Amino acid sequence: MQSQREQVLQEIISRHGLGAVVFWRPDELVLMLNYLPLWGLSFLIYTATGEPVLFVPEAEPEDVLPAGIEIRVYPWGNIQAADPWLQLYAGIAALLRERQLQNSPVSFIKHIGGTALPVAGGEQPPLAPDLLPVLAALGGGYKDASADLLKIYWYKSPVDIICLTLTHQVTAIAVAAFYKAAIPGATEAGVVAAVESAVTCMTGEQHIRFAKAWAQVQSGFNAAFGGRYNRTTGRKLQDGEMVMMELAVCVNGYWSDITRTVRLGTVPTQQEEIYQVVKDAKELAIAQLKPGVAMASIDEVARKYIDKYGYGNQVNHALGHHVGFRYHDPGPALAPGSRALLEEGMLLTVEPGIYGQQLQAGVRIEENVLITADGYRILSCY
Amino acid sequence: MQSQREQVLQEIISRHGLGAVVFWRPDELVLMLNYLPLWGLSFLIYTATGEPVLFVPEAEPEDVLPAGIEIRVYPWGNIQAADPWLQLYAGIAALLRERQLQNSPVSFIKHIGGTALPVAGGEQPPLAPDLLPVLAALGGGYKDASADLLKIYWYKSPVDIICLTLTHQVTAIAVAAFYKAAIPGATEAGVVAAVESAVTCMTGEQHIRFAKAWAQVQSGFNAAFGGRYNRTTGRKLQDGEMVMMELAVCVNGYWSDITRTVRLGTVPTQQEEIYQVVKDAKELAIAQLKPGVAMASIDEVARKYIDKYGYGNQVNHALGHHVGFRYHDPGPALAPGSRALLEEGMLLTVEPGIYGQQLQAGVRIEENVLITADGYRILSCY
Repeated sequence: MQSQREQVLQEIISRHGLGAVVFWRPDELVLMLNYLPLWGLSFLIYTATGEPVLFVPEAEPEDVLPAGIEIRVYPWGNIQAADPWLQLYAGIAALLRERQLQNSPVSFIKHIGGTALPVAGGEQPPLAPDLLPVLAALGGGYKDASADLLKIYWYKSPVDIICLTLTHQVTAIAVAAFYKAAIPGATEAGVVAAVESAVTCMTGEQHIRFAKAWAQVQSGFNAAFGGRYNRTTGRKLQDGEMVMMELAVCVNGYWSDITRTVRLGTVPTQQEEIYQVVKDAKELAIAQLKPGVAMASIDEVARKYIDKYGYGNQVNHALGHHVGFRYHDPGPALAPGSRALLEEGMLLTVEPGIYGQQLQAGVRIEENVLITADGYRILSCY
Repeated sequence: MQSQREQVLQEIISRHGLGAVVFWRPDELVLMLNYLPLWGLSFLIYTATGEPVLFVPEAEPEDVLPAGIEIRVYPWGNIQAADPWLQLYAGIAALLRERQLQNSPVSFIKHIGGTALPVAGGEQPPLAPDLLPVLAALGGGYKDASADLLKIYWYKSPVDIICLTLTHQVTAIAVAAFYKAAIPGATEAGVVAAVESAVTCMTGEQHIRFAKAWAQVQSGFNAAFGGRYNRTTGRKLQDGEMVMMELAVCVNGYWSDITRTVRLGTVPTQQEEIYQVVKDAKELAIAQLKPGVAMASIDEVARKYIDKYGYGNQVNHALGHHVGFRYHDPGPALAPGSRALLEEGMLLTVEPGIYGQQLQAGVRIEENVLITADGYRILSCY
């Protein structure tokens, strides 16, 4: 339990007059309990009064369960159980009655946006089809507090930073594997396989229960589309071109999102130039990061710098976004028109890029940067 | 376009008096168009009159788009576009008006159950938060035809079988990698890495645009939990024990779901016995497969056989499920109490298992079997 975060939640509960808040998406449980569920079928109930209770399916491994919280088991995964979901619903309703909250509104994050955490087998959790309507009808009915609940994602705690540092240690291993595998003659897919393997093999190392990577490699002309989509093909890497890797790494539910571009041998002068412009734009933008600065202005610094070299129209995405509990965390972006200010504890990607079919190439370099009390700290500085 | 499937859809449209049916989940597009979207943000609209129209985001690669269908682009992925989703919604509404269907009900699959297809980067598609309510308010409002629409998944066409055969050719390569990597001293995670790599490396080979595997390896005592969950750890494989691999492979949107168990050297007598019992139970059950047979009775054949050897209480899951467009397709299972009959064109897993902490081991063997006019064909027979 992260006490400061719990306090924020209690403020939300009290401000909205809620009886209970339900969390169940894997990243929500990492956020609130530092618990990455294996099945993705665990339900955490915070109530206005009393301690939180975690409902877990019978099939969940005991050794992944968090300590220091009351756990109630429902029979999902037991072939004898006629309808385990009904028992879960009844269990939550009973909890609300125990605490005299059966007529108070219930809330949960309605739609989280961004991208979800796949459970271990690459699957989405097999949730009941009627889950959302049933949860919304609990207690005194649903009251939407999503906007406030989603704000919890914006701030990384000291415990989160420790976990995210571990993620970046594993990411460093992935990046080393990329540099080693990205040689002329290798295929894009072969490089992806090497990078993802290196991360998978870290499973079971100290403090690492779950480690998985998703890499996308685009080489030469394929990287010209890197501002539009990431896609790995069977293309062979060639000497004299650039190769870009977009990479997501998840360790125990904590995510990094980085990009590296390498030059194989000597690349054409213009490609060398766009590489340097992107690198400098990134460093310039990062140097501006500190609490109180407008997020839009960080985007503008990088965009203007790239524009100065005549490549402004080749930048087709925002400069950055929140990251850490997901590959893309919810929250305001480093983007034109963004009206938010930077605050301490935010973890953001900074990822300028220049891509173009006329350039026959693409470059993106992406870091993950923590906003500290007086500036920033780059977590992806390997 | 698969004409027989389209005919089934038109019958559903006419039976429910629908104006249009919308498909957008990646597996729905594979099902209807043999099109695996890269972004997962493409929307296929079938209307009561006229030809279907596919709405695709501007960021979608042109070369993945299906031929022979009208395509309309909406500006998702263009940083200049203020709200690409509003343009998509307006585009669909305009299509309905063009065809005088603006007052007719619209349907789509409400909740598909089972497990979803991640897009290329391991992400879920970044759909608009208000997508479902907006789609449900199109035309004359939402009418639920999910039960009928989901039945389309139950039957694999000749074209699907060709695609699924390719998936199983890649799966055979993964299984060979498993047999090679599963040796004493290797870690479970290392074996997973080898298997997944072998599949990733097939990307770009003939007819293979997308190839990805999700393996779970449980060795020795860890496999005792294999009926409850699949989980890979850093445990080292040892001589004299059994190792189980659960494997999902997706090639171009077509899925296999198989399990193999290997014995490293000589295993204890009882473990050898449960291996043989599972193998025999699987073969016995498969031999019964043909159109008209009750699905529950297939489950019963395997369950009774295992029970005869005294291991009946170690079987904690159904014998099988539909597979092909997902890791787990919707549809009735080979399970106790299932009231459905087998029909030609169904593709099912057959996966008996015996697991137990007292046994200190677990065994599951899983095949993917197609129901043919007069019996069955094993696609996973490598």
